[in-house]
Order: sequence, then structure tokens, then C-alpha cells
Amino acid sequence: MTETDYREGLQLQSTVKQSGQLEIALATVETPAPGPDDVVIRIEAAPINPSDLGLLFGPADMQAATSSGSADRPVITAPIPAGLMKMVTARLDQAMPVGNEGAGIVVGAGSSEAAQALLGKTVAVIGGAMYSQYRVAPAAMCLLLTEGTTPAEGASCFVNPLTALGMVETMRLEGHSALVHTAAASNLGQMLNKICLADDIALVNIVRREEQEELLRSIGAKIVCNSSAPDFKEKLTDALADTGATLAFDATGGGKLGGQILSCMEAALVRSASEYSGYGSTTHKQLYVYGRLDRSPTELLGDYGMAWGIGGWLLPHFLQKIGLEGGARLRTRVADEIKTTFASHYTAEISLAETLELKTIAAYGKQATGEKYLINPNKNPS
Amino acid sequence: MTETDYREGLQLQSTVKQSGQLEIALATVETPAPGPDDVVIRIEAAPINPSDLGLLFGPADMQAATSSGSADRPVITAPIPAGLMKMVTARLDQAMPVGNEGAGIVVGAGSSEAAQALLGKTVAVIGGAMYSQYRVAPAAMCLLLTEGTTPAEGASCFVNPLTALGMVETMRLEGHSALVHTAAASNLGQMLNKICLADDIALVNIVRREEQEELLRSIGAKIVCNSSAPDFKEKLTDALADTGATLAFDATGGGKLGGQILSCMEAALVRSASEYSGYGSTTHKQLYVYGRLDRSPTELLGDYGMAWGIGGWLLPHFLQKIGLEGGARLRTRVADEIKTTFASHYTAEISLAETLELKTIAAYGKQATGEKYLINPNKNPS
Repeated sequence: MTETDYREGLQLQSTVKQSGQLEIALATVETPAPGPDDVVIRIEAAPINPSDLGLLFGPADMQAATSSGSADRPVITAPIPAGLMKMVTARLDQAMPVGNEGAGIVVGAGSSEAAQALLGKTVAVIGGAMYSQYRVAPAAMCLLLTEGTTPAEGASCFVNPLTALGMVETMRLEGHSALVHTAAASNLGQMLNKICLADDIALVNIVRREEQEELLRSIGAKIVCNSSAPDFKEKLTDALADTGATLAFDATGGGKLGGQILSCMEAALVRSASEYSGYGSTTHKQLYVYGRLDRSPTELLGDYGMAWGIGGWLLPHFLQKIGLEGGARLRTRVADEIKTTFASHYTAEISLAETLELKTIAAYGKQATGEKYLINPNKNPS
Repeated sequence: MTETDYREGLQLQSTVKQSGQLEIALATVETPAPGPDDVVIRIEAAPINPSDLGLLFGPADMQAATSSGSADRPVITAPIPAGLMKMVTARLDQAMPVGNEGAGIVVGAGSSEAAQALLGKTVAVIGGAMYSQYRVAPAAMCLLLTEGTTPAEGASCFVNPLTALGMVETMRLEGHSALVHTAAASNLGQMLNKICLADDIALVNIVRREEQEELLRSIGAKIVCNSSAPDFKEKLTDALADTGATLAFDATGGGKLGGQILSCMEAALVRSASEYSGYGSTTHKQLYVYGRLDRSPTELLGDYGMAWGIGGWLLPHFLQKIGLEGGARLRTRVADEIKTTFASHYTAEISLAETLELKTIAAYGKQATGEKYLINPNKNPS
């Protein structure tokens, strides 16, 4: 590997055009020269997280996407409903690179000792533009993976692990003692189960299908409620009464599920109440929405008294709240347990060009629970 | 007035029966003997606030209410939908007195100096059971009304004034600088306008009808948006951009309005954003639901980024949060401005028996904006 190898490389870019079209394409971009404290990483693994899809697809109607260009330089075009263009005025006609996190080999380094020390090492990094063959990043931002960890194993070091740990931290910070999680069979949900088992925290898992229930039980989950079962609300209320969980993290966002969780929390609290209050239980019930797998409108019946809150939960906001020290503590745990607690499983490893195939877009775009795609920007086109 | 007069009196009571019926009736109850520090108040004015209706009607279907008993002792019966009975298990078969706040004349007093000092005075009081002819309360709990204030003028000293002041306090405590209020032409909304004008706080009023818009403008409101107007969302977004309001108090609860406010707040913030973020603006947008005039499900589209929160807001919880000193500061302002800022207007003054007439129930049960009923438990039956 000589220095010239990384002077330019392919990058996936998403552009919202003034005309109301979304365009996703590959561009050859120059790799910026690394500063003294920077390294150049040859990215070999970058997951497609649900949190990447907002930037990648914008508000475009991907069902109506079409493909043009060549096999190794496909161009995807999709219409954006007129009413949604106002959401994206700030990114109009800018080719935005995508990919929150990734991992790879350090193939170039600035003059500083810290940067030079990473040459040839495998590192994970967060910060956007990871769906690129080469990414320059400050050495201080790189998480050095332990010897023997591959880029694929280290690619999801940040988003899912820190989100799962962040849920547990939020629970402690806000004075709750147990957790509820939806879409619980996801990669993230499996991590959360492992953390809660290790830390002895009661976790109520909510899934939609029987196979997901079995999957979670097979990794040791103790409480799993199936929202498709006819007795879902009774079972959930029982689980909430048993665990005392008054905090839920919801990945679905839309539909009735979030409101049902609050309603069942209230029912569980009222069960043990000795005195009637017209305003319901005085115990605060909190639902955090951290994803929107269900894009239908959220429906709330309001049958959970007055002590309740619903809010958006976003990893960067949370990390800001706990500060550098808190963040470092969580990162250390991730690096130590990357092959166990925080191991991710991928449906397929795809190249940048494959990322822009319509059938592949349809697959990762549907965000099926437990299905996750890994982009290798340096994978030879198949 | 001799002591024997208040030994017993009429009291309005609401009972949820095991059989699934709500019953509202008048009972003759003994007035407890006042302790040394207590006074006996002959209640002459107690408002029917939206917050009283939860205890009064429970989850009963009042459209199906029927009346029996005599003209001076009517009995109202209404069915409770089976699915809602679980909300009221804690009050089953208990005759619950109703009425959060009221005012009247002190007609009896315990031996302490503080209690004796109130004899013959007009006081306001909060604490439930105000739809009663006589109410015993600790002297320390009574707000002594200034000379010349009638019970009717002082009857709504607590709930609406403290709620309106609480909104402004919440705004300051949580770092917002302007407010949005729905059902803004209500008694409470008018108070809030007077407070905001006096304190130089930008207030975005949302109403549903043109007459309400005119009413608010006639008392000096500067910004009024009509949610029935075709350009409502544009006008609201303009108002939010102008004022920078990122906190809203919503009395309606159900329907789309709450979500629309968050969405317009986000649109106003994105307008001035220099950089695109897939997660939307990082400025926190907060909606507090303090009533549920609209009983339909709440519908949220989620088109307001990730920095948002929705929650229940309840006066007692808020007062607990600001502590005794904070509460006393707010109460003093109310007593000083009871005939101006905090003046209430009533549609009619009704007796206890009139409170249980089906046509009157239908009138105050619909909670029409700006319509408010005052019960005088000692009014001679008309």
C-alpha cells in the first residue's frame, strides 16, 4: 500500500435537487491531505443504520425510485412529495456524503506521534461520510480496536452500543428502575438484553412476531411480550406491574404502540394504588421515541393520567448531556465487549455500487427487525 | 347566623357503582366540628372548572344520563363503558365530594387566634368538596380576600390564576422566552393574555372561531391564530418565527392541533437554520397538555425532528415543584389583582339542585370556550 493509493476514492452522495428529486450516486472525490494529527482510514465496513436513512433517502418516495447510469456507477432518482420539500431546504443541491459510523485500516497518517502510532491498525470511527473508500479523521477520534478484531466486527462500535448503553444510563439518570423496549429483537435490542442481563436490570421486550420472541428467549431474555397476540395488553400490564418499569424506548414511533405502553403502565400503577385520583397515578411515565420504523401517524388515547411524557431521544443529544467523561466510560465498555455484548450480525456485506441497486435499497429500506446491511466501500465489485 | 346553622348541609356527591353506573346526587352531611385552627366556611361560590369534571362525571357516558328523584333532590345516573371501569377501581362505591375551589363567608371558627380572626370574613379556599354548603378548612389554607371582594369574585382564585401564572413560570424555568396557548379565549386564556401583556411576554393565541379572535384582540392580545382558517399553519409558523416561541400549553389534548404546533415550531426554526441536519433543529420544542377538551385520539405526524417533548401538565404537580415559597409568591399576586388580571366571568350562577339538571349538565359538560358556571351551594332554589 503506497501513499498514492488513497489520493482519491469513491464516495456515496445524496442530493436533494431544487426540482424536487432526490439523487443518490457515487462520485470520485479527492481525499483531503491529513493534518499532523489526522489519519487516513481505508473504510472496509460501515453499517446501514436506521439513523442513516434520513440523510440517505431524505423525504423521498423510495417506492417510486428509478435507476440509471452504469452497473458500477448507478444513479438512483426518487421523487420528493411537494409538501415535504420545506423539510430539506437547508440541504438543497448539496451532494451530502452519508454513513454515521464505520471501521477500517489506517493507511496514512500525519506527522504527529499519535497519528503515526495508528498506521496499519484497525480502528472504528464515527462522524459521517463513512460510505467512502477513504476517510480522514483526527487520530483522537479513532477507537483502536483490540488485536484480532476485524473492521466488520468493529463497524458498529458506536451507534447501537452507545444507544443501548444510553438507554440504561437514561433510566438511572431519570430515576426509573426497569425498562421497556420495542422492536426488541433488533441488533440493538439484543445488545440491550445482554446489558440488562449483565447489570441485573428488568427489561420488558416487545416484539411483533413469534420467531422474534423465540430469538430473544434463546439469548436469555426473561420477559417478552408479543404485540400481535390477542392478550398483548394484559400480558404487558402484568409485566409492567411485576417489574415496575415506567420508562420505555420506542423504535417504532408511529401507530398505537407508544400510547398503549403508557396506558398499560398507568393500569399497572393504578392496580396497586390505595386511593383514587381523578388525575391518575402521580408516578411519572416516560416514553422516548428514538426511531420511526412505523411511519404512520402516532395515535394517543390519553388514558394514562397526567403524569406522563413523550419525547424524542437522540444519541448525540444524550452524549452531549453526559459529557466527555461519561462518553469515554461507555466507549471503553464497548471496546472491551465488542465480540460479546456488542457483537452485530449482518444480513449481507455489499459494495457501494450494490448499495445503489433498487432491490437492495428495497431490502434495507424496509428496516426489517434483525436485518442489517454492511457496506464495504473497498469490496471489489462482484 | 347561629352556630347550629352549619351543623349539617347539602353536599354534591359522585359515586361509581360496581354495577357500572355513575350516580350523582345531593346528600345531607354533618359538618365536622372545627379543630382549634380550623374555620367553617359557608360556601357561596364554587366554579365548575374542566378539572372538576373528571371526578364529577368519571368515565361515564353523560350523553346517556337520566334523571330521577325530586326537583330539590335530583339523582343523575349514567352508564360507564365496560372497558373504562378499570380506570376507576380505586373509587368504586365511594360517595366522592366534588369541587376543587370556592369562596364564602367564615361562619364558625376554632379557638385559635388565627381562626377567630377570620370570623365573618370572606375567604377563598382550595382542596376539594367545595360543592357543599359548609366546608371546614384550616385557617392557614384560607386566602383572605381584600375588603369589598365578593365570594363570586373570589371563587376562582386558585385553579385558573395559578395555572396561568404557572405557564409563565414554567416558561422561565425551562428556558423558553415566549408562549403558545390553545383554547386561548377561555377565562384562563384571557388571564394569560393580561399576564403576558403586563410582563411583556410574547404570546401566540390559538382559537377556533372568529368571535374568539375578536374577543382576544379586544382585551389587547397581539397575536391570534385561528385554527379554522385555511392558512392557519402558515400564519402560525410566521408567528412562531417572529416570537421564537418553543413552548406551548394545550387545553385540547386530542386531535391534530398539538402535533401541528410542534411541526410549525420546527418549520419556524428550520427557516433560520444555516445548516441541514437530518434530525431537524437541535432546539427543544415542548408541548404541555393540561386539558382534554377534545376527547378524540391525539394524532402526531412526527414531522418535527428529534428535539421535542410532549407531557401532561398538572397544577398540583407544578406547585409541588416550585415549593411553598414559590406558591406564596404567586398567590399574593392573585389576591392583589383578583378584580383585574384574574377576574372571571360566569355564564350563570346555579344552585346545587340546578347543577344536577340534565340541560345544565349538557351546558357545562360541553366545556364551551368562555362559558363557565358558578355553583352557589347556598343559593335558594329558584
